[in-house]
Amino acid sequence: MRAVDIIMAKRDGRELSREELGFLINGFVAGTIPDYQVSAWAMAVFFRGMSPAETAALTETMLDSGGRMNLAGIPGPLVDKHSTGGVGDKTSLILAPLAASLGLRDPMMSGRALGHTGGTLDKLESIPGYRTALSPAEFREILARDGFAMTGQTRDTVPADRLLYALRDLSATVESVPLITASILSKKKAEGAEALVLDVKFGSGAFMRDPAEAEGLARSLADTGAALGLRIIALLTSMDQPLGSMVGNFLEVEECYACLDPARYSAPPRPGSPEHGLSADLMELTLELGARMLMLGGRAGSPEEGRKLCLGALAGGKPRDLFLGNIESQGGDRKRFLEMLGSYRSPHRAEIRAREDGYVSRIDARKVGQAGIVLGVGRNRREDPVSPVAGLQLHKKAGSPVRRGDSLMTVWGKDRESLEAAIPALEGAAEYAASPPSPEKLVIKEIRHG
Amino acid sequence: MRAVDIIMAKRDGRELSREELGFLINGFVAGTIPDYQVSAWAMAVFFRGMSPAETAALTETMLDSGGRMNLAGIPGPLVDKHSTGGVGDKTSLILAPLAASLGLRDPMMSGRALGHTGGTLDKLESIPGYRTALSPAEFREILARDGFAMTGQTRDTVPADRLLYALRDLSATVESVPLITASILSKKKAEGAEALVLDVKFGSGAFMRDPAEAEGLARSLADTGAALGLRIIALLTSMDQPLGSMVGNFLEVEECYACLDPARYSAPPRPGSPEHGLSADLMELTLELGARMLMLGGRAGSPEEGRKLCLGALAGGKPRDLFLGNIESQGGDRKRFLEMLGSYRSPHRAEIRAREDGYVSRIDARKVGQAGIVLGVGRNRREDPVSPVAGLQLHKKAGSPVRRGDSLMTVWGKDRESLEAAIPALEGAAEYAASPPSPEKLVIKEIRHG
Repeated sequence: MRAVDIIMAKRDGRELSREELGFLINGFVAGTIPDYQVSAWAMAVFFRGMSPAETAALTETMLDSGGRMNLAGIPGPLVDKHSTGGVGDKTSLILAPLAASLGLRDPMMSGRALGHTGGTLDKLESIPGYRTALSPAEFREILARDGFAMTGQTRDTVPADRLLYALRDLSATVESVPLITASILSKKKAEGAEALVLDVKFGSGAFMRDPAEAEGLARSLADTGAALGLRIIALLTSMDQPLGSMVGNFLEVEECYACLDPARYSAPPRPGSPEHGLSADLMELTLELGARMLMLGGRAGSPEEGRKLCLGALAGGKPRDLFLGNIESQGGDRKRFLEMLGSYRSPHRAEIRAREDGYVSRIDARKVGQAGIVLGVGRNRREDPVSPVAGLQLHKKAGSPVRRGDSLMTVWGKDRESLEAAIPALEGAAEYAASPPSPEKLVIKEIRHG
Repeated sequence: MRAVDIIMAKRDGRELSREELGFLINGFVAGTIPDYQVSAWAMAVFFRGMSPAETAALTETMLDSGGRMNLAGIPGPLVDKHSTGGVGDKTSLILAPLAASLGLRDPMMSGRALGHTGGTLDKLESIPGYRTALSPAEFREILARDGFAMTGQTRDTVPADRLLYALRDLSATVESVPLITASILSKKKAEGAEALVLDVKFGSGAFMRDPAEAEGLARSLADTGAALGLRIIALLTSMDQPLGSMVGNFLEVEECYACLDPARYSAPPRPGSPEHGLSADLMELTLELGARMLMLGGRAGSPEEGRKLCLGALAGGKPRDLFLGNIESQGGDRKRFLEMLGSYRSPHRAEIRAREDGYVSRIDARKVGQAGIVLGVGRNRREDPVSPVAGLQLHKKAGSPVRRGDSLMTVWGKDRESLEAAIPALEGAAEYAASPPSPEKLVIKEIRHG
C-alpha cells in the first residue's frame, strides 16, 4: 500500500477502505507518512467528500490512535453536549451542573478559544486555582461524585486529531464536513460519552455562516454518530449576535452563575429587568439543549417535559450548588470566586455608545468575536495567552430600543492599547433601524439520524 | 501575506495574483513555506485549475527561481522540440541533428526515464563516454558549433520545478494541466529556446490516455507559451503502440542512427524491408515535427515544404554526420559506438512468440513500457539505475500478418530474473485479430495559440 495511491484514489472520487484510511492515519501519527501527503489527501477530501461508511471508518481509526476514558461502573447515563462554537456561547457551564442535578453524568472534555469563538477551558481557568488538566483518575472520581467533570484533552486524547487538526489549520482544509465530523466524534467517543446533544451553529458568529452547510454537518454528525453507537440529537441554532450579555472569560462564568440563581426561576419573569432580558436567549438555548440531554438520557419523553424538569431543577438551586462544588473539586477557590463576582474586571474600560436613535437591529457576532481577540478574550494562535478580565458586557441587543449616546456595551481590554484598538470594530458591530427588527428564531431545526 | 490564505483562495476558486504566486513559490524554494502547504495548494489547483494569466505568472515565477542559458549571439533561430513522453519515443535524437542540418539551432535540455516512459538522457548515456551534464559554457559552445547540444538539467535549472515536481509526484498532483504547463515551459524558457514544437501524446502509452485531455494540455501550452513570448506549435499524436521498432536505451540510439542513414532516403522505399516498415511511424512523426520546427524557424512556409526539406537533408547525409560529430563533442567514443551497432545487447535474451494466426491488432504501449521498467530500460524511482543493454526489438506491429509461433519481439533483460519477470506482461501486450486492423492516424490535430 502506498500513500500516493490512496491520495490519488480520493482525488479521483473513490471511496477509501477502512484499511486504506488506517494505513494513512496510523502512518501519519507514527511519522512514516509525511505531512505533505496528508495535507494533499485532506484537500482531496475537501473537494470529494466522504461516504457515511468512510467517515465512520475515519472516526474509528482516529479514535484508536489514543486512549479512551474508562467510565465503566459510573452510574447514570453518560450524556454530553458539544457546540460547534460561537461568541458568548457559554451553555456548557450551565448545562453540566443542570444535567447532573437531574441524574445524568456529563463527562465534559472541552477545548480552548480559537479565532473569534470562545473556549470553555479558558473561561474555567479564570476562576483562581481551577484546574482543567485532570488525570483520568481525577476525571472519573469527580464525574462520579459531582455528576460532571470538566477537563481538557491530553496528549493521549486522539493524537491523530491533534496532529491532523494542526495540519488542516495551516493547509486550508478545516472546512470539510467529514473531517470536522471525525474530529468532533472521535474526541467525544474518547471522553466516554454514550449520547450527545450537538449545538450546530450557523450565522455571522458561527464557523459556518450558511444554515444549509451547518445542516449538512449536523446530518453527518448524527449519521456517523449512529454508526459508532453514539445516540445523537443535533439542534441547528442561530449565531448571529453574541449569546447572552457577556463575552469574556470570567465575565461569562459570572453570567452563568447568575443564570444558576434559583431566584430567577422561582418568581415569574420580570420583563423590566435588563439583566434577565439580555440573558434570555442564552437560557432559551440552554433549556432546549438540556431538554434533549434529558431525552437522550431517558429522563424526559419530550422537549416540553425536559424543559419543565430543567426549570424545576434550576428553581431548586441544586445546579448552583453542584457548580460551586465542582469549583472546589477541581481545585478552585470558591470563596474568592464569590468575592470576585461583579468586580473582577480589567481597569482598562470604555463605553461603546449608540450613534443613532431608534432600535438596535443587530450586534454582529463575528465583529464582536474578532474584537474579543484584540481585547484579550480569545486568540489567533494556539500558543497565545488570554486575559481572564478582558471582555464586554452588552446593555442592548437586537430589538432593544435605543437613544443616541446610550451605552451599548461596557468593554474591558487586557491593556489600554488593546482596548483602544478594539473600539472602532465594536462601534461598527452595531446596526440600527427606525422600527424593531422581527425577532429571530434561535433553534431552527432538530436533526436525528436517518 | 499568509500561505494559508493563498491556499484557501485557490481552494475557493479565486484567481491568484502574480504576487501571491511569487510569495508561495519563492517561500517554498527558500524553505520558509513548508511542503505540506504547497502540496495542499497543488491539490486545490488540481481541482480548480488556473486561468491563462495565472498559469503564465506561475511559469515566470518558477523560471525566475533559477538561472537561464545565455544564448545571445548564437546565429540561427533557437527552436526546440518537447514530447510529453511515450514508449519508444526517440524523435529527439533524429530531430536535433536534422534541424541543425537545415540551419536551426536546437538547445535541447532533456530529462530521464520515469515510470513507463523513456528519457533522452538515459539513451544518450548508453554511448560510451557520452556526457549529458554539460557546463553552460560547453552547452553554448557545442550548440554554436554543431547546431545542437544535448544536456540535462542542473541544480540551477528552475529549482522551483525540481522541488515542486518531487512534491507533486508524492502527493498525487502530477496530473494538473496548469502545473504541467508551468513545469514544461519554465524549463524550455530556461534552456533558451525561442520557439517550440510540442508533441503532446495521448493513448495507452502516453501520460494522458484521453485525446480531449491531451488537447487541453496542448492548448494550455500554446496559450501560455504565447504569453511568455515563446512561439509554439503543438501536435496531438497517438501513443497507443511503441513508436518505431526499438524500446531500450542503446537500442533506441541504434534505431535513430539507422533512420539517419542516407541510403534510406536516396532510393524509393522498399516495402519488403521489415526494418524500414517498423520504423515508419517513427519517421512519419519525426518528419511532421521537423517540418513544424522549420516553419517556426522561418525555413519553411508549410508542412509539405518542411517535410521535403527534411527528406532532402536526410538523403544528403548531413544529419548523420552531425549526429556522429555531436558524440565526439560531448565526450563519446564515436569509433566504439560504430563497433557496438547491432551487437551491444544484454546476454539475457528471449523471444516472445505469437500465440495466434492472423494479424497483430495491437501492441499495448503501456504494457510494453511497464515491462521495460522490469527489464531495466526505465525506472520507477528517480534514484534507480537503468541498463544500457536492456530492451526489446519489435518484429511485428499493429497490422502485421502473423502465424502462431512467429517471433513478435526479441527481448533483453538486465539479468535473467528481470527477463523472466517481464515475459508474461510482454506476452499479454499483443492482441490479435482475424483481419487487419484499420490503420491508426498518428497526428490527429495541430494546435497553435488563439
